[in-house]
Amino acid sequence: MTDTAPAPAAELRLAGWARASGTSALQTMLSVGTRPGTISFALGLPAPEFFPAEEYGRAAAAVLAEDPRALQYSPPCAPLQAHVAALMAQRGVACAPEQVFLTTGAQQGISLLARLLLEPGGEIITDTLCYTGFQQAVEPFAPRILTVPTDLDTGMDVDAVEALLAGGARPAFIYTVPDGHNPLAVSMSAEKRVRLVEIARRYGVPVVEDDPYGFLAYDGAPAHPLRALEREWVFYVGSFSKVLAPALRLGWIIVPQELVRLLAIGKEASDINTATLAQRGAARFFDGGHLPAHLAMLRREYRLRRDTMLAALAEHFPAGTLWRKPSAGVFIWVELPEGTDAGEVLRVAIEQEGVVFVPGHAFAADGSRTASHCMRLNFSHSTPDVIEEGIARLGRALRSLAA
Amino acid sequence: MTDTAPAPAAELRLAGWARASGTSALQTMLSVGTRPGTISFALGLPAPEFFPAEEYGRAAAAVLAEDPRALQYSPPCAPLQAHVAALMAQRGVACAPEQVFLTTGAQQGISLLARLLLEPGGEIITDTLCYTGFQQAVEPFAPRILTVPTDLDTGMDVDAVEALLAGGARPAFIYTVPDGHNPLAVSMSAEKRVRLVEIARRYGVPVVEDDPYGFLAYDGAPAHPLRALEREWVFYVGSFSKVLAPALRLGWIIVPQELVRLLAIGKEASDINTATLAQRGAARFFDGGHLPAHLAMLRREYRLRRDTMLAALAEHFPAGTLWRKPSAGVFIWVELPEGTDAGEVLRVAIEQEGVVFVPGHAFAADGSRTASHCMRLNFSHSTPDVIEEGIARLGRALRSLAA
Repeated sequence: MTDTAPAPAAELRLAGWARASGTSALQTMLSVGTRPGTISFALGLPAPEFFPAEEYGRAAAAVLAEDPRALQYSPPCAPLQAHVAALMAQRGVACAPEQVFLTTGAQQGISLLARLLLEPGGEIITDTLCYTGFQQAVEPFAPRILTVPTDLDTGMDVDAVEALLAGGARPAFIYTVPDGHNPLAVSMSAEKRVRLVEIARRYGVPVVEDDPYGFLAYDGAPAHPLRALEREWVFYVGSFSKVLAPALRLGWIIVPQELVRLLAIGKEASDINTATLAQRGAARFFDGGHLPAHLAMLRREYRLRRDTMLAALAEHFPAGTLWRKPSAGVFIWVELPEGTDAGEVLRVAIEQEGVVFVPGHAFAADGSRTASHCMRLNFSHSTPDVIEEGIARLGRALRSLAA
Repeated sequence: MTDTAPAPAAELRLAGWARASGTSALQTMLSVGTRPGTISFALGLPAPEFFPAEEYGRAAAAVLAEDPRALQYSPPCAPLQAHVAALMAQRGVACAPEQVFLTTGAQQGISLLARLLLEPGGEIITDTLCYTGFQQAVEPFAPRILTVPTDLDTGMDVDAVEALLAGGARPAFIYTVPDGHNPLAVSMSAEKRVRLVEIARRYGVPVVEDDPYGFLAYDGAPAHPLRALEREWVFYVGSFSKVLAPALRLGWIIVPQELVRLLAIGKEASDINTATLAQRGAARFFDGGHLPAHLAMLRREYRLRRDTMLAALAEHFPAGTLWRKPSAGVFIWVELPEGTDAGEVLRVAIEQEGVVFVPGHAFAADGSRTASHCMRLNFSHSTPDVIEEGIARLGRALRSLAA
């Protein structure tokens, strides 16, 4: 075995995005957030104490005992497709089970749709502040991202979308999170939903509807997704990560039937097959009828955490700070007084108080400092006690900076 | 809810590869191969009767009972990284556990390396006949694939690789399967291994070593992978799909430490996280010390299947047909007399005999009809009885065509 160093002249060449790339904020947060004593409001993690570990464990064990081919490659699990179609029907979405394309989590769904629709250098329309995982998914295509503002009460600025299209923009797709927006926590108004799909239809531009949080609605029934309003021009991305558990790595896409074949090719290129055992285990869990009670429990518990965080914000955060009560999802978006640097708040919060969150500008799709006075706070992962303690600590950090 | 058809003018625009794409051969084979009574030699599937379903089931159940966070997102599972490093050490590969980048199967490993190294329109060097999943993984980058011939006794034509590089080619990487090549079943000679890594080092071009079959060596100890000879310029892709089970969707990459950070970004964009439960379950399975006996059993059983197929070929295939005894992997490569159309053989085999295999030209990276007189036969998935029956049927199909 030789172990010669490379010739000095030879240097590894990387793809452009990799040469330009920094560290993933998520990776950093995952490691900072696990330091003992640190309270993390940073990531959109579900609460592990609510995972249906016992029921899922039983379901997976039964599936495995029955048939070792649960560990084999396989075509998509038809019973799981049927369960998803039934679940979507409750949200007003009509689709055939065969249209439910199962993925290794919703993130893969977004990646596959980007691969299907986006040419290198192509255009995309999205909110100025948007999910960083979406930005990563499209990064290898070096797209031109056209951004529109987002109203914190009604969601994406649909007029701005239309203005871009009327002005000649021809994006591969429009990307948005209509329910419990990440990071802005807003759910799109019913009126805007109708208008957005009408625009999508009129201009022939698909909307990629990313809906990890739609089932987590706290004030009445969850809204109808965009896909309920339009079946040709809305491509829906769903996830089991928040309603069951992330480590199943199960999500789904609903697309027009003729696209399933193409998604299957992209999927095969990405990871061949969604884990058969996870698919069958989840289907068995649904067979057992556990989901309605599980979802009701999640909504109740997360609503309590949301309300606990809202009350703690009111108690501990300085005057001049703004936030809204989100009706869905796992985040609260907080606006500090203009001029406050949330990055500086984060530094103090980590060093003096052991609390982590994500500063607003981390989500800017245009790479700007937009929202650098804002913070995204997660309320799903911490218990109510920890939420109270963490918000009190953040309040101290804010006061110490103001002093 | 409206259900209006799109305006007639609006037509969905897809990315270039999708507009040009046909149906996935793998998807077709997966469905044809599952028709009742059909014998499939088409896919590289492991035998489900050898999956360690009971031991893995116990391991996964223990992990789940211990900590519900086995269902949460998580950093890479350090014990599994350590097990992989130990496994690689047995193959002569020295690496730190932190260099073991865990992936959702080896296919994701290949995809992530393509994303890391390849610019749109960039060059790649590979065997003229190569794994179709590799071709799919690079397809969105529309690369220029420079191909070299492969000797059926000694593997990739390393002189041809050097000639391309000396002639000015500057590929993002060289891709090959040194052990149990897919589809050609050859394992690269020791001499060529030394020369290939020397060339890689000299020209500063990384080799992506795809090694799903290296642990399945039937005639003595498995060969040292290329990575054992060179640690800077060989990026190793490993897989648990063939040694444990595909539905764990677990694989790994070994790269220089400084690239792990960049792979993590690509990984996050693709599917965020490798399933925590599968990682911990596999680590627990290894903790139990089950692997050596399991691997010995797999080698013994697959050797029997290989030898059964070789004997059946000798008995049933017409004179003028050539094949070699593969020392590793799950395939036998058969050359029919020049001028025979393996696609036509396949048609007859499906219609008259209920047998499936993949014709050679399906693997041509240059889209040519190269190897259209060849067939790739899998011997790992069928029992010895079924192998005998299937090869007898194929022999009949060949004779009926010759008549």
